[in-house]
Amino acid sequence: MPEFPITPVWINGQPNNRLPVNDRGLAYGDGVFETLRIVSGQPFLARLHWQRLQQSCERLAIPLDIELVIDEVSRFLQQCQAPNAILKLIVTRGSGGRGYNPEDCQNPTRCLSLHPLPQRKTNPAICGARVTPCQLQLGRSALAGIKHLNRLEQVLARSEWQGANWDEGVVCDFDGYLIEGTMSNLFMVTRDGRLLTPDLSRCGVAGVCRAFILEQADSLGLITKTGFYPATLLDSAEITEVFLCNSVNAVWPVIEYAEQLWPIGPVTIRIRDYLLKELKKLEE
Amino acid sequence: MPEFPITPVWINGQPNNRLPVNDRGLAYGDGVFETLRIVSGQPFLARLHWQRLQQSCERLAIPLDIELVIDEVSRFLQQCQAPNAILKLIVTRGSGGRGYNPEDCQNPTRCLSLHPLPQRKTNPAICGARVTPCQLQLGRSALAGIKHLNRLEQVLARSEWQGANWDEGVVCDFDGYLIEGTMSNLFMVTRDGRLLTPDLSRCGVAGVCRAFILEQADSLGLITKTGFYPATLLDSAEITEVFLCNSVNAVWPVIEYAEQLWPIGPVTIRIRDYLLKELKKLEE
Repeated sequence: MPEFPITPVWINGQPNNRLPVNDRGLAYGDGVFETLRIVSGQPFLARLHWQRLQQSCERLAIPLDIELVIDEVSRFLQQCQAPNAILKLIVTRGSGGRGYNPEDCQNPTRCLSLHPLPQRKTNPAICGARVTPCQLQLGRSALAGIKHLNRLEQVLARSEWQGANWDEGVVCDFDGYLIEGTMSNLFMVTRDGRLLTPDLSRCGVAGVCRAFILEQADSLGLITKTGFYPATLLDSAEITEVFLCNSVNAVWPVIEYAEQLWPIGPVTIRIRDYLLKELKKLEE
Repeated sequence: MPEFPITPVWINGQPNNRLPVNDRGLAYGDGVFETLRIVSGQPFLARLHWQRLQQSCERLAIPLDIELVIDEVSRFLQQCQAPNAILKLIVTRGSGGRGYNPEDCQNPTRCLSLHPLPQRKTNPAICGARVTPCQLQLGRSALAGIKHLNRLEQVLARSEWQGANWDEGVVCDFDGYLIEGTMSNLFMVTRDGRLLTPDLSRCGVAGVCRAFILEQADSLGLITKTGFYPATLLDSAEITEVFLCNSVNAVWPVIEYAEQLWPIGPVTIRIRDYLLKELKKLEE
């Protein structure tokens, strides 16, 4: 049986790796999380993570003190002394009584944990990612965009393949529109050089790396378009490059998806290298 | 600040009320739960609870030993010596590493806790329930029917009202079809005496009490029909009685919903009293 050692963990600012069972994060997935890439002891894309965290908590009416979290993360990283790692931050609505009613739950739980960077034999950022379509379909949700703790759909999608044949899976909605990877967002480059990414107002997780790319597109000389794109678009000659992104792996060029093969194209390389340069800045 | 005392809790058969933070129940809501009404120290509708629990775990590929759970619940109840209470049973996929992949997580966590019966000034089972339409809409989900731990939609729906004006809220899907209450299932009685309940194959939680009523309909002399019913059906003279049910409260006749008023009708009374008789059997 594999063991899952619990890495350094702080709960509400104190070293502790156990949570009361009446925490609503466990009972209902009543909370949100952020997964931050740590480079030279500093969080990558921090501004966008804190912005999303704050907005997500507002949408769920979780009264989080964002300044407290930012300060806590900084002290935690200093104490852990891990130059390169993953920091996972969970915020739940805190402890509560039985029942869905969140009234009276005004003390959110903050949980920080440190994890090693994923180990892979080859790096898909360099060699390209091989990607499989997932059977699981996403439905429209009032919670679209939020990186909340209700992630069973991602668990089921991710369990559709095992082994090293595929680096990631792509999920569509029930209408056949492309949404995202199981742990990443999707971009496509058209023949005329535009950058397309699925609209996430109905379902999906609005990733921080996706937000960064959309924000920086102008300075990269790129025109972006967010919309509803059928999965069949990937079979057409209209799409010349495809890539996935998240804030841990930055950009993964997609070289294989179902029957399609793509080269690692120039637009993808430009964006990938731009993100790697941003990562490197933290090392200085 | 209110406090939420942790009631008697067993985790994996041992008294313990803290869970490791790397449990996937917290990380992803990767698990299921059952809420059982305990009468004279015995669980009500136990057979249907165990059946649903087993089926839910199978759908999520959580390798639960159901006999172990049944035995554990029985020993827990014996030890707690609470004749009338609520038992909450959470089953998660257990501890795991970071990431959605559930591979290697083969040790589910079982968490039992005991809670008091809800206290209300009046009993909606006798006086009737006043119910409000919720704004929140449910989308189609690959997880429809399962009582899983991804319950943020219920939390948001339940937070739409506070205070004692309403006993429950009713939720529709994005197409305007009636689905369920935030913590209960919905039944409607037609003018010609048929019993209608929403189809839950696209979204919603398939409650144990709903299953019991559908199962017993024949012996109650009732014809049932499961289908997609628009919320506007409740405004029509076609519907003469409405009720909600769950395995804690059994049947709540609905006497008010939006602008509609209904009497506590004969079919509702027949079903309510049938369930109360079933409850009483456990007292003998």
